[in-house]
Amino acid sequence: MGKGRLEAFSDGVIAVIITIMVLELKVPHGADLRALVPLLPVFLSYVLSFVYVAIYWNNHHHMLHAVQRVNGLALWANLHLLFWLSLVPFVTGWVNENHFAAVPVALYGVVLLMAGVAYYVFERVLIAHHAEESPLARAVGKDLKGVTSLFMYVAAIALTFVNPWVSCALYVFVAIVWFIPDPRIERALPGG
Amino acid sequence: MGKGRLEAFSDGVIAVIITIMVLELKVPHGADLRALVPLLPVFLSYVLSFVYVAIYWNNHHHMLHAVQRVNGLALWANLHLLFWLSLVPFVTGWVNENHFAAVPVALYGVVLLMAGVAYYVFERVLIAHHAEESPLARAVGKDLKGVTSLFMYVAAIALTFVNPWVSCALYVFVAIVWFIPDPRIERALPGG
Amino acid sequence: MGKGRLEAFSDGVIAVIITIMVLELKVPHGADLRALVPLLPVFLSYVLSFVYVAIYWNNHHHMLHAVQRVNGLALWANLHLLFWLSLVPFVTGWVNENHFAAVPVALYGVVLLMAGVAYYVFERVLIAHHAEESPLARAVGKDLKGVTSLFMYVAAIALTFVNPWVSCALYVFVAIVWFIPDPRIERALPGG
Amino acid sequence: MGKGRLEAFSDGVIAVIITIMVLELKVPHGADLRALVPLLPVFLSYVLSFVYVAIYWNNHHHMLHAVQRVNGLALWANLHLLFWLSLVPFVTGWVNENHFAAVPVALYGVVLLMAGVAYYVFERVLIAHHAEESPLARAVGKDLKGVTSLFMYVAAIALTFVNPWVSCALYVFVAIVWFIPDPRIERALPGG
Repeated sequence: MGKGRLEAFSDGVIAVIITIMVLELKVPHGADLRALVPLLPVFLSYVLSFVYVAIYWNNHHHMLHAVQRVNGLALWANLHLLFWLSLVPFVTGWVNENHFAAVPVALYGVVLLMAGVAYYVFERVLIAHHAEESPLARAVGKDLKGVTSLFMYVAAIALTFVNPWVSCALYVFVAIVWFIPDPRIERALPGG
Repeated sequence: MGKGRLEAFSDGVIAVIITIMVLELKVPHGADLRALVPLLPVFLSYVLSFVYVAIYWNNHHHMLHAVQRVNGLALWANLHLLFWLSLVPFVTGWVNENHFAAVPVALYGVVLLMAGVAYYVFERVLIAHHAEESPLARAVGKDLKGVTSLFMYVAAIALTFVNPWVSCALYVFVAIVWFIPDPRIERALPGG
Repeated sequence: MGKGRLEAFSDGVIAVIITIMVLELKVPHGADLRALVPLLPVFLSYVLSFVYVAIYWNNHHHMLHAVQRVNGLALWANLHLLFWLSLVPFVTGWVNENHFAAVPVALYGVVLLMAGVAYYVFERVLIAHHAEESPLARAVGKDLKGVTSLFMYVAAIALTFVNPWVSCALYVFVAIVWFIPDPRIERALPGG
Repeated sequence: MGKGRLEAFSDGVIAVIITIMVLELKVPHGADLRALVPLLPVFLSYVLSFVYVAIYWNNHHHMLHAVQRVNGLALWANLHLLFWLSLVPFVTGWVNENHFAAVPVALYGVVLLMAGVAYYVFERVLIAHHAEESPLARAVGKDLKGVTSLFMYVAAIALTFVNPWVSCALYVFVAIVWFIPDPRIERALPGG
């Protein structure tokens, strides 16, 4: 099966997810700058979630770029990833509602962790469907970066009960690491 | 007519449907895990509806993959299917609002039944538009699986007045049966 | 310029319009069938608006199918059409809020009229951009059907002050006439 | 990397942005024309924001049309632009909530300014990725029109503290200037 529709559907779902998050930014009643102050943490969490969803779109783009075809299992692995991404607006909203309390910040990490796991599974499904020496397999290898991120999320979830801000700092740190699209795939591809 | 735009528009509509359902997950006020407990059935119904819409996207993908062209009738048969799918968020919300009461659970089944009927009609329209010995016609045959599902929905609707949970179990059962994308089409297609 | 992106963007906008209308169907509090009774007119107006937006998508699809390229003017003529279509959920909501009162039903007609005018303008822009003997020009001709619809909307708007239900009947009648995709374009196209 | 998915994802995000703005048009309770009067400024701000987002889609379309390929940096420059565009519904809502008060009107300008800066950066990234004598580079040149717009936004932001309506007039003026898609790119392209 071609990969065109899987890409188009994923683009649609991720576009809706990334845009409905902005509906969390409730219009304040006041007309001066002070009215925006309580919105500042909400805005920052929106930026973080926007960047995370954008990173997933970016990596999804790079990964599918290195792939020629998909099978039925890959369709479901992709839908599994989209499911966890669709929960990002909900956990972002819960974190904001409770001003970065421990449990909501931990659940934010759980959703990031599950999305990371789903991405990893999707990657393995695609690699298994292609030849062992495919560009994707060579580019990704054991995916140390992806696996390390998963451990970072687990650490961040545990640390929420010490200090939720440390966890938030870890989320930001992982986002920065992923900010740069995976150069391994670009390098491994002819004309990539 | 080519099938590209029918696919693109369906991807867009299904992407919006599957994502706005998550807006039903209202952010709770409390900051501890107990605040999430009343959300658990809402979450489970979200998962079920997500899986159902995902199954329709998957089967839609497989079916259109086996088709070369569409006509005006196929466009409307597809829109008819999208109409019933667009009601899934509404019935999911009604089921949640009333904690799985009999009538909402029955209406959930009615929407699934109508979507199933619409899919079956769409399938027949596409088969009629192609040659009798087309890959789609050979792959689908009499579509025993699709027709059986319709009877399962009817049974589930009737059973809501005995016990709505039995109906829910039936919905979950049909979803599991459909979870695996239709191997008949994949098998019948060269290089599918 | 190719027509691919104009089609893709229009598909996206129309997909969002057709799906957010269902958010007007507010989940009722009661758990029995009587709770659905007040929703019945809302549901019927949803069906009508769904069919109207679907008709525009269908005709848009047929028209662009008969066209090879677009220019800057066509992009704006298309955006003008999308603008009026984007107001359909608003006027549908106003009609429902006031139980089919005269002024809201008239405004519903105004939006249909303006969308019809915008579609007609878009059609003329595309014909002007192509040769006089293009398939689109031959297929559409003077577009008697489109122009007649505009007069029907004007009549329906005027009739709201006699009886809004007569206007609604006219809207339904025009929708039925357009329900069948334009056979002129399908006929005029080779392999259409 | 091909530009197809960057275009498709941008189409999706911009389609959602341009359509969710209409949700700001809250259905009024009254059933006569007077009930619409308080909605008039909301409607006009919706039209202005619709036109601005449409201008960005139009220019995005023209710019990508002149480009053959994108790299990882271009993906992020594009996401940066989409981020600022995603804030347009929020600032439009704040302007409406406060009846065009100074600070909200200024913030509206800040978002327009940042979107303009993001577009300019995206343009430079694309030009740098192509040959010096590429069609895009020749067509855009120093982009006097784009840079002048940025200064207009800065002026409009400053003028909100004199009179917000002067700023609004400036926003409308810039929109009118951009209304016509960039003829430079169309001219510079063979068959453009």
